[in-house]
Amino acid sequence: MVQVNGNYLKLKAGYLFPEIARRVKAFSEANPQAPIIRLGIGDVTEPLPEACRSAMKAAIDAMGTREQGYLWLREAIATNDFQSRGCAITAEEIFVSDGSKCDSSNILDILGEGNRIAVTDPVYPVYVDSNVMAGRTGEADDAGRYGGLTYLPITADNGFTAEIPSGPVDLIYLCFPNNPTGAVASKAQLQQWVDYARAHGALILFDAAYEAFIQDPELPHSIYEIEGARECAIEFRSFSKNAGFTGTRCALTVVPRGLMGTTATGEAVELWTLWNRRQSTKFNGVSYTVQRGAEAVYSPEGQAQVKALVAFYMENAAIIRRELASAGLEVFGGEQAPYVWVKTPAGVDSWGFFDKLLQQAHVVGTPGSGFGAAGEGYFRLSAFNSRANVNEAMGRIKAALAA
Amino acid sequence: MVQVNGNYLKLKAGYLFPEIARRVKAFSEANPQAPIIRLGIGDVTEPLPEACRSAMKAAIDAMGTREQGYLWLREAIATNDFQSRGCAITAEEIFVSDGSKCDSSNILDILGEGNRIAVTDPVYPVYVDSNVMAGRTGEADDAGRYGGLTYLPITADNGFTAEIPSGPVDLIYLCFPNNPTGAVASKAQLQQWVDYARAHGALILFDAAYEAFIQDPELPHSIYEIEGARECAIEFRSFSKNAGFTGTRCALTVVPRGLMGTTATGEAVELWTLWNRRQSTKFNGVSYTVQRGAEAVYSPEGQAQVKALVAFYMENAAIIRRELASAGLEVFGGEQAPYVWVKTPAGVDSWGFFDKLLQQAHVVGTPGSGFGAAGEGYFRLSAFNSRANVNEAMGRIKAALAA
Repeated sequence: MVQVNGNYLKLKAGYLFPEIARRVKAFSEANPQAPIIRLGIGDVTEPLPEACRSAMKAAIDAMGTREQGYLWLREAIATNDFQSRGCAITAEEIFVSDGSKCDSSNILDILGEGNRIAVTDPVYPVYVDSNVMAGRTGEADDAGRYGGLTYLPITADNGFTAEIPSGPVDLIYLCFPNNPTGAVASKAQLQQWVDYARAHGALILFDAAYEAFIQDPELPHSIYEIEGARECAIEFRSFSKNAGFTGTRCALTVVPRGLMGTTATGEAVELWTLWNRRQSTKFNGVSYTVQRGAEAVYSPEGQAQVKALVAFYMENAAIIRRELASAGLEVFGGEQAPYVWVKTPAGVDSWGFFDKLLQQAHVVGTPGSGFGAAGEGYFRLSAFNSRANVNEAMGRIKAALAA
Repeated sequence: MVQVNGNYLKLKAGYLFPEIARRVKAFSEANPQAPIIRLGIGDVTEPLPEACRSAMKAAIDAMGTREQGYLWLREAIATNDFQSRGCAITAEEIFVSDGSKCDSSNILDILGEGNRIAVTDPVYPVYVDSNVMAGRTGEADDAGRYGGLTYLPITADNGFTAEIPSGPVDLIYLCFPNNPTGAVASKAQLQQWVDYARAHGALILFDAAYEAFIQDPELPHSIYEIEGARECAIEFRSFSKNAGFTGTRCALTVVPRGLMGTTATGEAVELWTLWNRRQSTKFNGVSYTVQRGAEAVYSPEGQAQVKALVAFYMENAAIIRRELASAGLEVFGGEQAPYVWVKTPAGVDSWGFFDKLLQQAHVVGTPGSGFGAAGEGYFRLSAFNSRANVNEAMGRIKAALAA
């Protein structure tokens, strides 16, 4: 009799976004006239940069065969995203993929079952759910915390800085600029993490999907700007947010040569070799057309267009911050990241605030508690929308709060 | 200390195609003038159908957001590929993905560790390697057979028909038209498999990536043409081969509603729900542009262009069969599939024949032993190439054999 992977049954009801979709669908079926604005999921709304569109159309006629990542794209990435910032990352260490979500969950394939895992709380749910599905956790408690995981709270109480764990862990998920809180980490803060990882032989899984939104020139964009990070960190990057590739699909993972893990019997094994094998066997590369589009991100026109896109969304974020603050809400993030993290009004929990905004303002956001127990009492608004929708949504939210 | 997944270390040296690439590279570095023709890997060579290219260019300007599979594509697939052949498959049961290789290895995520697994021998290496990597096998023996797997030989001795296992297995990988042998299965043969699976509560993983190459109208294209298959089979399909999407990336997996597996404690669980959850959490959909290109496969122009592509490659296959037979080699397959499966000359093993053709004819094929121990003494030639290359390659192989 065929057996299923019972770990899936440990998952708490619904991945966050399907649950949101369910509630929005129920509401809009009951209120078909309500003009809903979605500031919930982090999908970009503006068109692809013109440089990317031109490159993709040209690529369709010159269609090549698939490759794990064409050298011309991996070299453009290494030069522009890493070497230009002093990171000694080479094209060989870059694996092009169809999404950071895939990579950050697939990475568990090459890691052992005995690792002690730390995640922030709140956290991007994929890090947790992929561990649950792979059987690397116990059951969830009533607050949605899974046994076997170490949760590192990031809240207003600690300035949205995850504290270094007191005990040893082997695998640490970090995301800066942070989804969902919009918080950032300084070089000094990341240095503490790298030092911890090196001292404990731990591996940092660093998600830099939002690095393009950093405005402060002092902040690091890559973990490899930190001394020693090549020995203890894998980094995930994406074209989804900076260049609007959400519907186009292109991302990359950096696995430095010489980064080691151990077998259960203590033998040292290079992670690059395992990831290369994993991707060769279980993945078949990204569409040639899409890789040509991604390459165009690094042309002078592409760079200017991406910069304009980022500026557009960051102006949205500034509007959201300003308007909600003027309505008396406490707001965080949104200054170096496209997410604004809002404290819900006194006495209203995350899902309560979600339902209130959906029903009274017809605005969809994301309940903070969906990102973890410590996200309770917060709410995430995304800056990825048109200016008109953002202005309209802010007006409606303020009216609902004043009512 | 971070631990790696030690199962990766069980893998026998190199995935087949990287090993071929290594030998070809070494040869061409030593012989830079040799005009190598590649009939090894099954990557198509002809351009994308014009209908697909037009649809993709239009899609780039209308770029939508990503979805697991747009309803318009899933409906086109359900209608044209399944309902038209009497299979009661609905759009809901179709999951669009970026490749059959990904899906056929990722499917293990939702299946338990205790399943007894059967594969044919020879076999598409991804089925085996993904099981090794997931820890579902023991170590390999000297012939490359992994402990814990049930191997079902398909050779000339049994007419390239895998025999129903004598004992119980829970998971069965079948691929028809077959890669690498080019063999096909009749409805009566597949009915035996479905009957076996239903009797034993087993799951058939049916790879139909090459169904478009079937010429005989009596042969089934889908496992769902077989009575009872909805209760025991998942099917993988691809646009890579029929429509030349190898470099474009689009495929699909069919998981019927109501298809069940059990937990370790005997609870019945629907596989559709688990796969839907897996894809929602660990995958982020296929490029909108690419999905529009795939949809165009089903337009009248697209259908005519795909038919012409298939006919072109099948004429290549016919040439390969005819020429090699005239040179005294025993040939199989290539009549309902784009692969010709050649018996190596007496006294020459698979890798020996590979090296002979590489060095003397500068033609790259695939050693049968790379697909499994029972593939020893065979050699796979792919029909995916230009007519000029196929003719030239056949001339050179005949000259090398006559020398």
